Amino acid sequence: MDPYVDRLIHLSLDEDLGAAGDVTTAALVPADARGTGELWAKEPMVLSGLGAFARVFHLVDPSITCKLLQKDGDRTAKRQLVAKLEGPLASLLIGERTALNIIQRLSGIATLASKSAALVKKVKGSKLKILDTRKTPPGMRGLAKAAVRDGGAHNHRFGLFDGVLIKDNHIAAVGGSVREALKRAKANAPRLVKIEVEVTNFEQLDEALEEGAHIIMLDNMTNAQIARAVKRVAGRAELEVSGGITPERLPVLAKLGVDYVSMGALTHSARAMDLSLELTLSPASGRGRG
Amino acid sequence: MDPYVDRLIHLSLDEDLGAAGDVTTAALVPADARGTGELWAKEPMVLSGLGAFARVFHLVDPSITCKLLQKDGDRTAKRQLVAKLEGPLASLLIGERTALNIIQRLSGIATLASKSAALVKKVKGSKLKILDTRKTPPGMRGLAKAAVRDGGAHNHRFGLFDGVLIKDNHIAAVGGSVREALKRAKANAPRLVKIEVEVTNFEQLDEALEEGAHIIMLDNMTNAQIARAVKRVAGRAELEVSGGITPERLPVLAKLGVDYVSMGALTHSARAMDLSLELTLSPASGRGRG
Amino acid sequence: MDPYVDRLIHLSLDEDLGAAGDVTTAALVPADARGTGELWAKEPMVLSGLGAFARVFHLVDPSITCKLLQKDGDRTAKRQLVAKLEGPLASLLIGERTALNIIQRLSGIATLASKSAALVKKVKGSKLKILDTRKTPPGMRGLAKAAVRDGGAHNHRFGLFDGVLIKDNHIAAVGGSVREALKRAKANAPRLVKIEVEVTNFEQLDEALEEGAHIIMLDNMTNAQIARAVKRVAGRAELEVSGGITPERLPVLAKLGVDYVSMGALTHSARAMDLSLELTLSPASGRGRG
Amino acid sequence: MDPYVDRLIHLSLDEDLGAAGDVTTAALVPADARGTGELWAKEPMVLSGLGAFARVFHLVDPSITCKLLQKDGDRTAKRQLVAKLEGPLASLLIGERTALNIIQRLSGIATLASKSAALVKKVKGSKLKILDTRKTPPGMRGLAKAAVRDGGAHNHRFGLFDGVLIKDNHIAAVGGSVREALKRAKANAPRLVKIEVEVTNFEQLDEALEEGAHIIMLDNMTNAQIARAVKRVAGRAELEVSGGITPERLPVLAKLGVDYVSMGALTHSARAMDLSLELTLSPASGRGRG
Amino acid sequence: MDPYVDRLIHLSLDEDLGAAGDVTTAALVPADARGTGELWAKEPMVLSGLGAFARVFHLVDPSITCKLLQKDGDRTAKRQLVAKLEGPLASLLIGERTALNIIQRLSGIATLASKSAALVKKVKGSKLKILDTRKTPPGMRGLAKAAVRDGGAHNHRFGLFDGVLIKDNHIAAVGGSVREALKRAKANAPRLVKIEVEVTNFEQLDEALEEGAHIIMLDNMTNAQIARAVKRVAGRAELEVSGGITPERLPVLAKLGVDYVSMGALTHSARAMDLSLELTLSPASGRGRG
Amino acid sequence: MDPYVDRLIHLSLDEDLGAAGDVTTAALVPADARGTGELWAKEPMVLSGLGAFARVFHLVDPSITCKLLQKDGDRTAKRQLVAKLEGPLASLLIGERTALNIIQRLSGIATLASKSAALVKKVKGSKLKILDTRKTPPGMRGLAKAAVRDGGAHNHRFGLFDGVLIKDNHIAAVGGSVREALKRAKANAPRLVKIEVEVTNFEQLDEALEEGAHIIMLDNMTNAQIARAVKRVAGRAELEVSGGITPERLPVLAKLGVDYVSMGALTHSARAMDLSLELTLSPASGRGRG
Repeated sequence: MDPYVDRLIHLSLDEDLGAAGDVTTAALVPADARGTGELWAKEPMVLSGLGAFARVFHLVDPSITCKLLQKDGDRTAKRQLVAKLEGPLASLLIGERTALNIIQRLSGIATLASKSAALVKKVKGSKLKILDTRKTPPGMRGLAKAAVRDGGAHNHRFGLFDGVLIKDNHIAAVGGSVREALKRAKANAPRLVKIEVEVTNFEQLDEALEEGAHIIMLDNMTNAQIARAVKRVAGRAELEVSGGITPERLPVLAKLGVDYVSMGALTHSARAMDLSLELTLSPASGRGRG
Repeated sequence: MDPYVDRLIHLSLDEDLGAAGDVTTAALVPADARGTGELWAKEPMVLSGLGAFARVFHLVDPSITCKLLQKDGDRTAKRQLVAKLEGPLASLLIGERTALNIIQRLSGIATLASKSAALVKKVKGSKLKILDTRKTPPGMRGLAKAAVRDGGAHNHRFGLFDGVLIKDNHIAAVGGSVREALKRAKANAPRLVKIEVEVTNFEQLDEALEEGAHIIMLDNMTNAQIARAVKRVAGRAELEVSGGITPERLPVLAKLGVDYVSMGALTHSARAMDLSLELTLSPASGRGRG
Repeated sequence: MDPYVDRLIHLSLDEDLGAAGDVTTAALVPADARGTGELWAKEPMVLSGLGAFARVFHLVDPSITCKLLQKDGDRTAKRQLVAKLEGPLASLLIGERTALNIIQRLSGIATLASKSAALVKKVKGSKLKILDTRKTPPGMRGLAKAAVRDGGAHNHRFGLFDGVLIKDNHIAAVGGSVREALKRAKANAPRLVKIEVEVTNFEQLDEALEEGAHIIMLDNMTNAQIARAVKRVAGRAELEVSGGITPERLPVLAKLGVDYVSMGALTHSARAMDLSLELTLSPASGRGRG
Repeated sequence: MDPYVDRLIHLSLDEDLGAAGDVTTAALVPADARGTGELWAKEPMVLSGLGAFARVFHLVDPSITCKLLQKDGDRTAKRQLVAKLEGPLASLLIGERTALNIIQRLSGIATLASKSAALVKKVKGSKLKILDTRKTPPGMRGLAKAAVRDGGAHNHRFGLFDGVLIKDNHIAAVGGSVREALKRAKANAPRLVKIEVEVTNFEQLDEALEEGAHIIMLDNMTNAQIARAVKRVAGRAELEVSGGITPERLPVLAKLGVDYVSMGALTHSARAMDLSLELTLSPASGRGRG
Repeated sequence: MDPYVDRLIHLSLDEDLGAAGDVTTAALVPADARGTGELWAKEPMVLSGLGAFARVFHLVDPSITCKLLQKDGDRTAKRQLVAKLEGPLASLLIGERTALNIIQRLSGIATLASKSAALVKKVKGSKLKILDTRKTPPGMRGLAKAAVRDGGAHNHRFGLFDGVLIKDNHIAAVGGSVREALKRAKANAPRLVKIEVEVTNFEQLDEALEEGAHIIMLDNMTNAQIARAVKRVAGRAELEVSGGITPERLPVLAKLGVDYVSMGALTHSARAMDLSLELTLSPASGRGRG
Repeated sequence: MDPYVDRLIHLSLDEDLGAAGDVTTAALVPADARGTGELWAKEPMVLSGLGAFARVFHLVDPSITCKLLQKDGDRTAKRQLVAKLEGPLASLLIGERTALNIIQRLSGIATLASKSAALVKKVKGSKLKILDTRKTPPGMRGLAKAAVRDGGAHNHRFGLFDGVLIKDNHIAAVGGSVREALKRAKANAPRLVKIEVEVTNFEQLDEALEEGAHIIMLDNMTNAQIARAVKRVAGRAELEVSGGITPERLPVLAKLGVDYVSMGALTHSARAMDLSLELTLSPASGRGRG
């Protein structure tokens, strides 16, 4: 598994357990009690984070087995069995909340991405792709980006290292000129990454075109402005729309001929999905105490 | 600062920067460029996470100074200056997204907690306290719990270690008996933590009372059932209401005489608030390249 | 295993091995030599720390097998076989000292706890429980607390997070008033932890009772004072005796009617028990060098 | 400071605080309360661990100042002021127990080492040096070794990497021959470390001498046997006495002409010294809550 | 500083010091001795790694001051003063070797890169850029890539995350077809990274052109083949030459019209430069021992 | 495996992969594709680092199997199969570069050590041993020292902790006197490490002999001076020659009667050997995408 995911899980378990551990389970559950667990989706959703869900239990106790019955990207019914666990009952109880916190959040992102993508898909012939942003839950970048893909949307760059994206603050940092920013980018950027630049008006758009930006982000423009920009660019660069986009606006944007729309809300404001873990004491175990 | 907060920030910076760093900033911004930054709230909100916001920049570059103009728990206007930063412009750009991701999310939690608490406060004489749960963003337990307090709501236990909370899965783990679960808890729980138990019907409620639970959680009960429970318990234990509670239901609950209501949504489904960082190149700096 | 235990073991192995490793073993023992080891108790004791003992060898070399013949809390004869190991002889030699350092110390704590508990048990009908403190060997909190239980004594709170214990320095911190300290504690303490307060005289005792402390710690009182306190409290709170308690005083305390006595010496001054590891070269192995 | 010491302190603070922190202090002490602390020795002792004591508070809160009035190796009166602290009162309370746990234990080791060394010093003209062993508290190797020196005794090797010490288990590992063990050691040991071998009888002693061991450890020999060994060796190697040595035996050993005596009890069974921290609320601070 | 650089320095210090530290310095140098150090280049070279050199001493002892008299990329005389240090003499001795190991190696890379770049620069009008590879010293990726730039050569991608580079093993992984590999890359690669593909013959070259690769790497081709490829491509993609390139071949390649040549030897086989640290005891210090 | 080796591998993988991972492999290779890999030596060399090579793949994906056909210290033909791997093809691609970077470098050191040792071996009857230094690649101390042994040369001390080596800077640190430095070393050095001192002239040599240094390092002396030193010392100490030694000088040194010659170049300037990994897609796997 990904070391970044493991760091997040360890941090989550540490904040929940500390050195003192689960005092409820320690008081109630005999060491030899074994149990089974069922992960149920309790509303329709697109699943994401099943690997991390299973990983939590593996890190709590490698003797737990986890069988996944669904896979990331699958759409669930209103009530659907997603995974089965078996192992020491105390270990299942210890991992429950941490594992659920992760999968509920990621499935929320996937589900919101899926709903957004569906709105675009309805517009026949649209090439519009919905992108995420770097506005991901702290420590969950990779998981959140995978959830976006599981929902049928697409990823913008992963981090600061795999693409040049010149935003308003960068333009301010070079003294306010889009042209100057792009000149520096072309001279100094890594050889294998493309250059995208954010513009807020048509002078900047023209400078971006003249300097050969690969992608131009239209920030906070009206539909009319966007339509004008598409016409002006005429395929010389890819176009991305950004800035407070709500799902309601997607069908219109899908018709305007832009290539991408990026939505921070996909990852920063998705609500958690309802999934729960139902545990059962295995017969003839756990007689050691009580 | 709290080592758990530092672990979260390091993880977030690592996922955003990797070993290769911010290629846009490296390409555009001269090493000697200095800048100032202003953190603006762009909608009304209750602030939370200012310490972690400042800490991000400190960990990116200890030479950055951060002056907080507001404090956690403050309510902002629609557009309000929250903090000022000064330092190397490249370092400000590198920390921007990570710092915003944290404060936007925490202020979202504080704002939702505040709105919920206000609904209860309107009910004169109610003793009802709104509690959070352990359904916090992974790796952000302490920050999220502080945000709940900043918004005027209260914290349930912090983790698995500072209170006994016997839930459905624990009752299943001891064979289905609330009485048996409480007996074990009283015999084995740490001396200084109290015991709370979840019940779903009145037989369980009676067992909980007989076994001397300090707090009884009424799970998924109707208002009528809750009222009946309050009467039956008659002050012999504290009562907590739980299970899919929405803000709309709070005013009614506030009148029923229960002590607590716990709401997972406070921390698992709050949307991010809109805050942004506006950077300016300091005059007469950053002439080293370009 | 517990990540805190693993951190302690890794730290111990690192300080013993560094990057250069065991130069004696490297010089003498062929890589293909296998061996068996026997862990012997060499004086009567109560065992504790067997899991950590085995864990050391697992972290040194996962191919070592460790079979425990006794369990934590067992009382040994003057010379008794406790565990058997098998694996690469070099790995057994590398883990030996670190594993022994841990089990010798923990068995010392368990043995002292057991002796102390026995002194109380002799007093028929006494409800007195012997408690440990937070004066545990640095980095061994959880292991030391388990050793106390293995010896038949009980645990006070685990750390600073799972109970309010107001001591002289806290009372000084609020300006000297037990009443004020308890008022603040009741207003601000986490909902699920109890409140204990240390008192040194009867005025403080009365304030503690009036403010509803769950447990009152009588600090450095004479037997006569303790008897008077028991009478005064009359079951309205639990009572704990503390302050330089030696085992000799336990039988008297057991008759006074207090609930608890806490003893720092259990964990800060127990001597190490004598356990040793006896290794044997397995026949027909280790012919690779020499 | 030493990274190994920092790892121990972080582990100790983590086990005491977890992510939830000090709930007593959080409930009682206002954030703006400042305080002073005095570290008092409360019995005569040899001090050790002052640097680590101060380091704990620095890692808890870098704004705390710690002024040491004594230094490691100093002998205290029955009641003596050792150090003064100043800083946020909450931070002083948080660090108190962890810092005391370290210095109490290390001063115990230094004091026992000092008492042992004094017994030898009384024997005029004796060259006997008292050595420690690797039987140190887990995670405290370097601190414990410094405490031994602070008490006036000497260090054996630090770990497995800075000296060849062939013990019974190594001899077993090469098939039982001291000669074979020494041959392999001379052929393979690092160029700059010396070779010491443990012998239990005179045949082994002769082999050790013939193979040129730098130091020979006489294990569990009677005084008469030791005297005979000194005579036989006649300065051809250094001699160390080992095996269950109690302080009472030191004066006799000091007259027998051996070079070293090693005592595990110095570090594995020293009792903790009585030191305490007395805190005072600074006037006109801490009015923020209450 | 970069956390990756800190990890490398901590690892290097740990392997050199362990928990036992510098026994020579501990034995010889009084704790109060202060000293000055001069870093001298002892042969002509291009410097690189000055920041990491200074960082080593900062991590050993934050009280050391380091003044850099040269900067990365500077060319030294045969004997030239590069930096001055001042601080506790023991700390200077402890950091010496680790700091030198880093700067000697990095200056070796910069110097070799500089020599290679000079060979190309002599060819008037050549656009050829010399690139490094990912064949960097383990753990030194960022430092080595900076050294290449300090020497005047250029960086290929940083790691596996910031560019698609399809090599022989990837082509094998998709069943042997360059076309198939490029199709998959275009469909699935991150939006902001470019695609480079390695070809070994002209059929593959044609496929790469048809599939729109941004950059084509000609692997192990003769000068004649390269010339033919340049003609065939005619500016439709950038061209990179690779495979066992020695500096001797650079002038010829510079004339062939390719865009890039990548050389693993820049970072995997550069020899260390001769730099040394000369320490002096500061007058009137270090009288504490001896 | 050694935790220091694991730290180096994790650092190397982290710098190569970051949180975003291998984008080429992710785009091209289906998750269910399996493959085999062959590690080929492509020039004659002495192998070293096979354990670390295998360990990289194990840390990337524990399901990869690695079968070593050669062992460290083996000499290869011009083209020779060294190891076989089998596992998920994506995992093989991810580990390839990191694993090669390590083994290529270590085999370079072993090969250079072997060539140097061969030059000495040709001189019949010479006792000269070739030693490495602490000038090892940062983070690779233990691996590099093993490579030196694999090549048939010998190790000087491992780090600062396992031997006293008094160099020019130490002599400066005690005020310039070899005698004083040795006096302090004898008084204060750990009991089980030997003392070596560097001398640059015959007065220093005489002081070193008089003070009983175990080993004397002759720094930057001519062959004539070395011969004179050997005569003067006459076996009273071991002699080591050091300072810019090239392989060409070894045959002469081998005849002069010194014990050791230390060569920094063995570890700081060995070139990387040519080894490559050839991967093959396993039939009937990897049909999941494309």
